[in-house]
Amino acid sequence: MLDDTDGGVRAEIESLCLRAREGARGLAAASPEAKDKALRAAADALRNRAGELVAANAKDVADVEAAGKPASFIDRLKLDEERVEAMATALEQIAELPHPVGRKLATFERPNGLVIERIAVPLGVVGMIYESRPNVGADAGGLCLKSGNAVILRGGSESTRSTEVIVACMQEGLKAAGLPETAIQKVPTTDRAAVAALLQAVGLVDLVIPRGGKGLVSLVRDQARVPTLLHLDGNCHTYIHEKADAGKAAAIVKNAKLRRTGICGATESLVIDRAALAMLPRIVDALEGCEIRGDEEARQADSRIGEATEADWGTEYLDSIISVKTVGGLDEAIAHIERFSSHHTDAIVTEDPVAAERFLTEIDSAVVMHNASTQFSDGGEFGMGAEIGIATGKIHARGPVGLEQLTTFKYTVRGTGQTRS
Amino acid sequence: MLDDTDGGVRAEIESLCLRAREGARGLAAASPEAKDKALRAAADALRNRAGELVAANAKDVADVEAAGKPASFIDRLKLDEERVEAMATALEQIAELPHPVGRKLATFERPNGLVIERIAVPLGVVGMIYESRPNVGADAGGLCLKSGNAVILRGGSESTRSTEVIVACMQEGLKAAGLPETAIQKVPTTDRAAVAALLQAVGLVDLVIPRGGKGLVSLVRDQARVPTLLHLDGNCHTYIHEKADAGKAAAIVKNAKLRRTGICGATESLVIDRAALAMLPRIVDALEGCEIRGDEEARQADSRIGEATEADWGTEYLDSIISVKTVGGLDEAIAHIERFSSHHTDAIVTEDPVAAERFLTEIDSAVVMHNASTQFSDGGEFGMGAEIGIATGKIHARGPVGLEQLTTFKYTVRGTGQTRS
Repeated sequence: MLDDTDGGVRAEIESLCLRAREGARGLAAASPEAKDKALRAAADALRNRAGELVAANAKDVADVEAAGKPASFIDRLKLDEERVEAMATALEQIAELPHPVGRKLATFERPNGLVIERIAVPLGVVGMIYESRPNVGADAGGLCLKSGNAVILRGGSESTRSTEVIVACMQEGLKAAGLPETAIQKVPTTDRAAVAALLQAVGLVDLVIPRGGKGLVSLVRDQARVPTLLHLDGNCHTYIHEKADAGKAAAIVKNAKLRRTGICGATESLVIDRAALAMLPRIVDALEGCEIRGDEEARQADSRIGEATEADWGTEYLDSIISVKTVGGLDEAIAHIERFSSHHTDAIVTEDPVAAERFLTEIDSAVVMHNASTQFSDGGEFGMGAEIGIATGKIHARGPVGLEQLTTFKYTVRGTGQTRS
Repeated sequence: MLDDTDGGVRAEIESLCLRAREGARGLAAASPEAKDKALRAAADALRNRAGELVAANAKDVADVEAAGKPASFIDRLKLDEERVEAMATALEQIAELPHPVGRKLATFERPNGLVIERIAVPLGVVGMIYESRPNVGADAGGLCLKSGNAVILRGGSESTRSTEVIVACMQEGLKAAGLPETAIQKVPTTDRAAVAALLQAVGLVDLVIPRGGKGLVSLVRDQARVPTLLHLDGNCHTYIHEKADAGKAAAIVKNAKLRRTGICGATESLVIDRAALAMLPRIVDALEGCEIRGDEEARQADSRIGEATEADWGTEYLDSIISVKTVGGLDEAIAHIERFSSHHTDAIVTEDPVAAERFLTEIDSAVVMHNASTQFSDGGEFGMGAEIGIATGKIHARGPVGLEQLTTFKYTVRGTGQTRS
């Protein structure tokens, strides 16, 4: 909880939220055309000010390099002309997507003549807390704008200068379309008390979405009094059933693990039926260059496999490492995956449709797959367009969080003077 | 947070949750027929054991009377044969409703041949924390059973004996249908630390729903680390627009305020256009027996109206009291309602369709109505069947929380060996 010494920061955040609420009202009243115009104008602003943005980013990067941050951190922070162009293009792509607000989700015509409709509406004010990856600010800003939500961005403190220019470009877009600039704002201070204040702004913030590592997500879960949408880790499994096609198995595992090892939909653990162990050498061939850690039976099936410990089953490597667990069949596979999965994405490879359906039904993950690479777990690949992330919780949104998931709904009831008996 | 002295209670709650998880697995695999059979058998058990239940309840009531609790508290706690029959009938009605699990919510067929479906699935383990109203346990147990969720009930400590018999009846129903009795359990202790442990059982409880007064709901919001679905207060408005039909206005306000004053959909405040003040005496006639507190203009329009203070605008009376606020027109009405409404249900009375549509669009409440009584804000009246309550938040569920709102969804992806490029 905040103590009294944070009163100043709390008041600052409250007034920021109240401005965002005004921005949200402006967006709620805006036409779809105006929102798309703002997105395209923001893309233009990013292109026009690319030099300024790259220069501001270079200062952020220089500070971080001087502080000795790891190369992966610097890579996520760094912007060049190409990455700025990708941000601008992403905003234009969001403008092309269907509008999520105003959809009629259900209609009930009642015997008493009341006509009740469930209508998609914006959430209101969304807080976005993320690490030093400046493009997240533009993506989240674009998705919130399109879905009619005001957004308050709080990027990592190492990206302050970059975020400042990005928010200025987004606001330029809003202004060009006659929309309130308060619809996209950033937290004006890097004081960590501001994060706590945002997380406790009950009645002022409708949803907070953290994007980042486990530390950030846990902090949000522990401190939040407002609703949150958490993106936790992706400890994804690919299970090779005894009736798998060996060629498909090898191709799918290779892609699921190695296409990109750093994304949350990457497979981290291979689960294989004892009766399918003869396929393992072919899969190991396909995983060339990947460290493989297996249990004893896996190691006996292929000597290129190193030793796994119990800790491996629960580890999200996000790297060229995969674990191999041998199981006695479908039941054991489901039990193992249910125990260790982070319930993001899990896949079965089999030619047996009955086994496939049981897996799809009994594995309680956001995305369950049959004969496909877990790397397809992505809003774009699902045809939903851009996404803010993959939610691993079960409330409100599960799986890819795109435009529809950034809306809520209300009921409109139209009568002619009805009273309840 | 829990301190170490609560370790025993925490361990007890964790093992309760793990048993509930097993129960949830059993329900997830159960046929729709088995779930309906369990509901009907539970209704039978309630009828067969009605004498035992009423006797247990009488002991609960006697303790509460000795403790000097108010009459309204005792009325909510008290069960007689008629109320037990109503609980049994409610379970049978839930059995008649359509099954919410397994609905195909969306299908995406992708150019690469992947078939992606969004399928409704149970949430898993639901915690229900409520005050000493024993019927809430049966209703919530029935709705959770039908929607495939295991439920952990934690009723008010004053209703312990009643809850014990109700849970035994529900478990008898589960057993008769061959379903795991762990699908409906109660917290085995009245220790308040158990509530905190339940609210912090991250990964073990998928959703906690509090039902009760503001104190309980705030406690849940402040202590919860698991997702929650909050039912806050219903400070509902009925707005009489200058183009209202005076007859409809009087009938609607009378019904909205007085049909039942203790429900959350009851109108608490009348907002009236200055240009409509001539209608006020007719409305006051209709509100016979109700205390009316108005601003100066309202009092000048009808001398039967007493004085309102600023505090009245934000008060949910849940009683025969209504406030009257005079406004200069639609914009001022919307601003007043947006400021003071609890965003549960708000209504406009007007014959002007343009004003009505603006009100329905711009008022950001769970339910917005035109020419109808706010007392229609109810899952049953919406045709959704039984409800657990009316959610005033925007996340996951908004408005009446019935069977559909007690589900989440997962994505199934069916491929033929696809890998991502």
